[in-house]
Amino acid sequence: MSISSLAQSIQSGRVSAFQHCAETLQRLKERDGAYNSVTRILESRALDAARKVDARIAKRESVGPLAGVPFGVKDLFDLEGHVTTAGSVVLNDTPPARRDAEVVQRLCAAGAIPVASLNMDEFAYGFATENAHYGTTRNPHDTQRLAGGSSGGSAAAVAANLLPFTLGSDTNGSIRVPASLCGVWGLRPTQGLLPLAGVYPFASSLDVIGPFAQNVADIRSVSEVLIGHSLAYEEDTSQLSVGILDGWFAQDLSEGVKAGIRAIGSACLHTKTVTLPEVARARAASFVITAAEGGNLHLGRLKTTPMAYDPATRDRLMAGALLPSAAVIQAQRVRNWFRDIMHQTFKKVDILVAPATVGPAPRLDQPTIMVGGKAVSARANLGLFTQPLSLAGMPVLSAPLAPQNTDNSALPLGVQFIAAPGKESILLAFAEMLERKGLLGFPPVTAGN
Amino acid sequence: MSISSLAQSIQSGRVSAFQHCAETLQRLKERDGAYNSVTRILESRALDAARKVDARIAKRESVGPLAGVPFGVKDLFDLEGHVTTAGSVVLNDTPPARRDAEVVQRLCAAGAIPVASLNMDEFAYGFATENAHYGTTRNPHDTQRLAGGSSGGSAAAVAANLLPFTLGSDTNGSIRVPASLCGVWGLRPTQGLLPLAGVYPFASSLDVIGPFAQNVADIRSVSEVLIGHSLAYEEDTSQLSVGILDGWFAQDLSEGVKAGIRAIGSACLHTKTVTLPEVARARAASFVITAAEGGNLHLGRLKTTPMAYDPATRDRLMAGALLPSAAVIQAQRVRNWFRDIMHQTFKKVDILVAPATVGPAPRLDQPTIMVGGKAVSARANLGLFTQPLSLAGMPVLSAPLAPQNTDNSALPLGVQFIAAPGKESILLAFAEMLERKGLLGFPPVTAGN
Repeated sequence: MSISSLAQSIQSGRVSAFQHCAETLQRLKERDGAYNSVTRILESRALDAARKVDARIAKRESVGPLAGVPFGVKDLFDLEGHVTTAGSVVLNDTPPARRDAEVVQRLCAAGAIPVASLNMDEFAYGFATENAHYGTTRNPHDTQRLAGGSSGGSAAAVAANLLPFTLGSDTNGSIRVPASLCGVWGLRPTQGLLPLAGVYPFASSLDVIGPFAQNVADIRSVSEVLIGHSLAYEEDTSQLSVGILDGWFAQDLSEGVKAGIRAIGSACLHTKTVTLPEVARARAASFVITAAEGGNLHLGRLKTTPMAYDPATRDRLMAGALLPSAAVIQAQRVRNWFRDIMHQTFKKVDILVAPATVGPAPRLDQPTIMVGGKAVSARANLGLFTQPLSLAGMPVLSAPLAPQNTDNSALPLGVQFIAAPGKESILLAFAEMLERKGLLGFPPVTAGN
Repeated sequence: MSISSLAQSIQSGRVSAFQHCAETLQRLKERDGAYNSVTRILESRALDAARKVDARIAKRESVGPLAGVPFGVKDLFDLEGHVTTAGSVVLNDTPPARRDAEVVQRLCAAGAIPVASLNMDEFAYGFATENAHYGTTRNPHDTQRLAGGSSGGSAAAVAANLLPFTLGSDTNGSIRVPASLCGVWGLRPTQGLLPLAGVYPFASSLDVIGPFAQNVADIRSVSEVLIGHSLAYEEDTSQLSVGILDGWFAQDLSEGVKAGIRAIGSACLHTKTVTLPEVARARAASFVITAAEGGNLHLGRLKTTPMAYDPATRDRLMAGALLPSAAVIQAQRVRNWFRDIMHQTFKKVDILVAPATVGPAPRLDQPTIMVGGKAVSARANLGLFTQPLSLAGMPVLSAPLAPQNTDNSALPLGVQFIAAPGKESILLAFAEMLERKGLLGFPPVTAGN
């Protein structure tokens, strides 16, 4: 059942918000043990909110487009009355949030109900959701594999059909990588489009927040509430000019990713290949800016309580704070240059297509993947294709490729669709067209699987 | 004779552009030996251009609002066919500029004639115009004193009545400090308003270019050409709300500066005092951003040809390139915060008034000035009041106070007027009002002095 159908069923009184919410909470408790996507269940808040939704419906009030729809948020969104952990224990002594994050308020105003907070890499600094304090989140499609990160709990909860949608954040790929590995949809909206008030920062000049869901219609429903206006695209999607990114974005791809992107290209009338220059430098600039901004954010606490940090996070933040300024200024210069290149590209094409990751989720016991013929860290390189694109601030939709065999053994694979700033409507319309053609979408794991 | 009167005399044919230009070149040769404001005289270009102006006027063409007006540019503006030195010898092997800097083109299109390039601190990194390669520029009002910098040649040439206007650049005060010390007017326009194409950068995120002139009417004439539209202010200047900055901006002032600012406050109907918070931090942020951006710009050449640099410049650029990233990111954060504070201030006042320097030009043999009861480097601290304001990017007009005694022994003193972004028109109208009241303006040094 889609999010809008669920909301309509609740609004019409056919489904009780309270009953649905209670079942969702029950499902989280029963089934999340295998995945570890959830860090906190907001039981009393959720049930109270569901009762209120039912009471308003009983009075024939219109609750909103997400009436009674449960959702979860990555552990860095403020929830009133709770300490925001950001996946760490470092913030344990900070005061509880006095109000929900702005985007959570927007969702609640539309009738949605926050029911859980979700696991992540400490301070969002990772692509794996292997958290020294809260444990590793497992991939619902194969619990011996990574869910990806840093919004791994948000992706896994949707992939496991525990929640219809969740919120995550994406600095270098933290929505797109776990969406790809878990076979769900994730949107990184245009930089600056959504407010970050009440969201614990990581690298401020790159941070973006966005939703995960099981299909593009649900991404649309949630995104229109988050952004606050319709994302309808009125023109003929068959006339969209599509650029398939090659060069950097064609390296080391698994056969499944290659075939999926080929099929997308063939399904469009106007397809060409596009080569972006200096992608390796753009990715390096992302690394540098992230480390420097993250390092500065944490420098005070790193001086006083270094041992409270996850070791992997701590060492990178310290190194980031000590980067020579010349590297950071140069990285900003690369960023401005690369953003201009991307703007020029969107004069020639409406949409770009790129892989989200080289292949399926690495196994938990798999330290390396092959990139350019070399064994490199699997964790650090999951962002190979996502990092350079965030640098430019354009909106990116991560979509799961439809499974290409029918034996249920296929693992999810993801692609990225990129458009010019503010053109989320093109991304959604394009993906809806490909979803209708059967090229996109991956079935979630249900209790019966 | 004002710039507009001169241009009208030339346009009307009463004065020959060629004759005027030849006299200007002669004056530069005869009188600049005492000041060392000029580094290159563009004799053949200037005389050719003057001949063309006269030829067009003979054909009854309208040449433009600066018809035949000679001007000079700081040594970091591209002039077609010349190597742009930026006050250094490091760039000597770079190719000559293929075209004039964009703002020079704008002035030429309005009929003005570039006749000289002017001395500066190496790469604009200084407040003194003490240049290891091209010598020290002397203050025309007392040649045993500094002209200030880094646009010292541009200020001194106007103060010595050698040129009616000049162009300079201002990163931390490099227009306002020498304007103040030399008793001329200097405008630092709103950050981003004027194009920097063809201007050798220093610290890109702070660099601004602007004009020097002998009176506010001339600043207006030149600024309207540079910016490309009228800067008329249609409302009643007596109703402007004026904030006199105190706190940081009231420390260690000479009696003359105090009296001048007091007189300005008394001359306005709506005056209050305004205290900006954290000015010391804002100034520190300017220092850090300047060092880091400058250091990054020069890092390549510092590695290969360090000994070609002016020692004072070299050491600071190297240190800047090695600043830890945490300091730079923090400085940007302070900048954003301080800019917001300034924006809020301009909801309450139309104009802010601050001193430009603590007092008159230091002597060449004077290594220190007193700040906060401590002897500190005179050179580094000339930007005490200018640096924090550039950080916020607002337009600032540096105006000379009228001399308060009549014995000709007075040295120039300067004040800054600050307005909200894009409000140059308010600055000019306010200054014109005070100039009419006799509170502003300092006579230039003429051959007869």
